[in-house]
Amino acid sequence: MSDNQLVIIKVGGNVLDNEAVLMPFLSDFAKIKTPKILVHGGGKIADVLLKKLNILPQKVEGRRITDAETLEVVTMVYGGLINKKIVAQLQSCGCNALGLTGADGNAMRAHKRKSKGNVDYGFAGDVDKVQTKNLKKLLDAGFDLVFAPITHDKKGQLLNTNADTIASTLATAMSKHFVVNLKYVFEKKGVLSDPNDDNSVIKKIKLSDFETGKSDGSISDGMIPKLQNAFDAMKNGVKSVVICGTEGVRAKAGTKLKL
Amino acid sequence: MSDNQLVIIKVGGNVLDNEAVLMPFLSDFAKIKTPKILVHGGGKIADVLLKKLNILPQKVEGRRITDAETLEVVTMVYGGLINKKIVAQLQSCGCNALGLTGADGNAMRAHKRKSKGNVDYGFAGDVDKVQTKNLKKLLDAGFDLVFAPITHDKKGQLLNTNADTIASTLATAMSKHFVVNLKYVFEKKGVLSDPNDDNSVIKKIKLSDFETGKSDGSISDGMIPKLQNAFDAMKNGVKSVVICGTEGVRAKAGTKLKL
Repeated sequence: MSDNQLVIIKVGGNVLDNEAVLMPFLSDFAKIKTPKILVHGGGKIADVLLKKLNILPQKVEGRRITDAETLEVVTMVYGGLINKKIVAQLQSCGCNALGLTGADGNAMRAHKRKSKGNVDYGFAGDVDKVQTKNLKKLLDAGFDLVFAPITHDKKGQLLNTNADTIASTLATAMSKHFVVNLKYVFEKKGVLSDPNDDNSVIKKIKLSDFETGKSDGSISDGMIPKLQNAFDAMKNGVKSVVICGTEGVRAKAGTKLKL
Repeated sequence: MSDNQLVIIKVGGNVLDNEAVLMPFLSDFAKIKTPKILVHGGGKIADVLLKKLNILPQKVEGRRITDAETLEVVTMVYGGLINKKIVAQLQSCGCNALGLTGADGNAMRAHKRKSKGNVDYGFAGDVDKVQTKNLKKLLDAGFDLVFAPITHDKKGQLLNTNADTIASTLATAMSKHFVVNLKYVFEKKGVLSDPNDDNSVIKKIKLSDFETGKSDGSISDGMIPKLQNAFDAMKNGVKSVVICGTEGVRAKAGTKLKL
């Protein structure tokens, strides 16, 4: 199955929020010739809507607590507004996009995260299973998929799941059927050695560098979960992982990870 | 192709708004053995959200004017919240549901309705084309489809389209590939001869009865566009049309139309 390529791109909130960056990005994504999946996060639009509706964002240790009202808002914004806008835009670029959440075609089943001490995470979903057979059917039928960061528990409950996690979980699971190349596209050009210098892109990070960087503090806290996710995906069969800016969709760019 | 059955069910807003009615309806829908498509409207949820966001619903001659803000809200509510809740619920009943709008898989292309005199209808979409090939691929792959009343113009613009129209247009177009049975499910048990008596269901309406009823005023104004849509669908290849309550999903019930 070595010729069976699949590109999975996770696009971050800061790209989604900036139409002048998003549109050329989607146009480049549409030009990718292999089967492809775009995973999107939420950006600031959900926060803006929560504020307008007087729903106070609740966070514990930086993680949003998804209460029932917040779940409705993220389902609307991620699964509806952002997902459908991206799909319509890709269709205008000749890409046969089809938008979905983890509930559609039972693509991604999750369970409600367990409470920890006094902290009830609400409707946050930790992934149990990717229904790769259904996703493969859709890709084989010629659809390119646009995945919103919403999952379900197969008992009728939708759940809110982190988009980076969705991307790495999808990439790992789809490696059963495809040679998967995963890209995390965000507002920077890659992982930076100096957070204050946008041009200090590290070309390559080895797993051993990552382990060292974690312990000596040279990798910034924000990058650790993203890199951890990415390395885990590579350990579990994903062919390549790149962290890059939007230019990384059409050219070699950004930070390449190496086991 | 005479064994190639397809059931298309349009479910109305008053059913969607009542969870105690919606849940058993979805459970019955899940049990239908042939390929199937559920088309849903919006219900009151969009109006509630518009009000919370201080967006005043604008109507001209009973038709909602879809300005840019309203389009965002209906995209969120129809394409996100309602669609994904239905999909998750159907998945819990063992139905391999996949939610979509007309943008997904380019399922339904429309154009922005032309202004009429001084009235700009905004982002209301009149349907041009159903991409039956893509829909057939999804049905053939074993997915049951849940269609939100949003279309697109293939130039990147989403549009708001009436759900009854979507159902009849889908039914007509899919008649190329399937023997299509269309059901309009709403809060009444069928077309009533006496609007004040819920049990006065007319068992059968012939096209000639409809034409007479239109001119002598015995058919209520609200039913005319629904019946017109339905008869047009039958004239264009749809095998059968029934207008019924939720019990019509599992049993013969309601009003059957006859050419």
